Amino acid sequence: MKLIRFGPIGEEKPGLIINGEYFDVSEIVKDYDEAFFATNGLENLKNATKEIELKKIDPNVRLGPPVARPSKLLCVGLNYLDHAHETNAPIPKEPILFFKSTTAIVGPDDDLMIPKNSVKTDWEIELAIVIGKKASYVSLAEAEDYIAGYCLHNDYSEREFQLERNGQWAKGKGCDTFAPLGPFMATKDEIADVHQLRLWLKVNGQIKQDGHTSNLIFNVPFLVHYISQFMTLLPGDIISTGTPAGVGLGQKPAPWYLKPGDVVELGIDGLGTSKQKVKAYSA
Amino acid sequence: MKLIRFGPIGEEKPGLIINGEYFDVSEIVKDYDEAFFATNGLENLKNATKEIELKKIDPNVRLGPPVARPSKLLCVGLNYLDHAHETNAPIPKEPILFFKSTTAIVGPDDDLMIPKNSVKTDWEIELAIVIGKKASYVSLAEAEDYIAGYCLHNDYSEREFQLERNGQWAKGKGCDTFAPLGPFMATKDEIADVHQLRLWLKVNGQIKQDGHTSNLIFNVPFLVHYISQFMTLLPGDIISTGTPAGVGLGQKPAPWYLKPGDVVELGIDGLGTSKQKVKAYSA
Repeated sequence: MKLIRFGPIGEEKPGLIINGEYFDVSEIVKDYDEAFFATNGLENLKNATKEIELKKIDPNVRLGPPVARPSKLLCVGLNYLDHAHETNAPIPKEPILFFKSTTAIVGPDDDLMIPKNSVKTDWEIELAIVIGKKASYVSLAEAEDYIAGYCLHNDYSEREFQLERNGQWAKGKGCDTFAPLGPFMATKDEIADVHQLRLWLKVNGQIKQDGHTSNLIFNVPFLVHYISQFMTLLPGDIISTGTPAGVGLGQKPAPWYLKPGDVVELGIDGLGTSKQKVKAYSA
Repeated sequence: MKLIRFGPIGEEKPGLIINGEYFDVSEIVKDYDEAFFATNGLENLKNATKEIELKKIDPNVRLGPPVARPSKLLCVGLNYLDHAHETNAPIPKEPILFFKSTTAIVGPDDDLMIPKNSVKTDWEIELAIVIGKKASYVSLAEAEDYIAGYCLHNDYSEREFQLERNGQWAKGKGCDTFAPLGPFMATKDEIADVHQLRLWLKVNGQIKQDGHTSNLIFNVPFLVHYISQFMTLLPGDIISTGTPAGVGLGQKPAPWYLKPGDVVELGIDGLGTSKQKVKAYSA
């Protein structure tokens, strides 16, 4: 299944994409949230759609993030060799983990707002994992069972806030609108091999990132296993798996950052595309 | 007012402490969560308690964290001079920010579970701020208006996970049970001067930390102002303001960490005390 959430910001309803058409499932499901995933929601929804005639919706509706606000949006740093090289960082011996604030999450085509006082707002296309059930000390062999599905994520990052303003990365990763998710969450069965997906990102029509999940340093089941050794993952939690080369910080001959008017488009095989217009922050 | 949440884990109900006695307010309030703070919940509750006779509850009831799971538990690193010195860290020029995972939050007297494979589980008493209304680009002058109240927090930290396992602090800060909050949230009006509070922590009856909020490098309103320049704080979000000297990592002649059987007790003037028994993780 392909899960969407549609409608105005903060009032999104759950829906599905079936054969390219959009359907409302809000009479079957309250939301795609922790309780939904924890109570076998995906299986129940699948069964319900066989019995109930779904209401079609306007395909031009605004999409929100495909899952409700999770308890965590956890990211993996420097998880592609080429990206580690372009940022002059050593190859990680174990995954680097950091949190993005969940208030950064927006819909796939919502505007990117450059924060006030930002001088280095950058892009990062990433494959995101959605957790399907509570995961604590999960073995590598069982890790895949804990995954509900996948979605497209742009891990926007303010490099000056992140790297030059003292300390941890939190300041540059958690800004509002810095985590467009979607257009949809594809359930696990929709993706034949999650390590065989091309991912790409363009700025103003020009290709900047063109990577492949076969180049992940730490792969998808390993990340779920690894992270669950340090904390409990809840149903609906999101793990973003890192970005390949081609971010603004790594541009040659000099870094290059976003400005109002720029347009960012990105996509991953099987997970759709998203597009953010870049605007200056306004209250 | 002094807000508590009481009952079994995951089923806590809202209550109040009035003149040392515990009362149930679950007929007035659903929970102390984002919606509560966002809809003038504190004022409404105060008024309601004048008109309704409250049901007294057993003072031996288990207390949960005094506020519901927030969107963020954001912490400030190295915010006391003496703690920066003991960890051989430079004095921060601006606040260091990091996230703890909200799954780490437990009640004030719940057991601390040492994670599997942990060798350096450490304590950190901290004053925590509870945000009262949505805060984005808040001026320093107005910052105090965005605070609902304060509570006691023990920012448990696994130093090997945090500092020796590659990268950011997330691994050592987000473990389950690593954020006991409470016993209660004191509303702002209960605390005459938040910068004149003693805070102390004992391990097995021996004093380890004995600090004072007058020694905060970055004070309470500044932190709210500062953080709101980087991300939106939501009602009910928690900011933990840093720990004074005396953590295990800073013990002389050698660092000293927690083991099963240890007992940690801590308190802040006006914010009560909490006590955690240390246990080995068990599923």
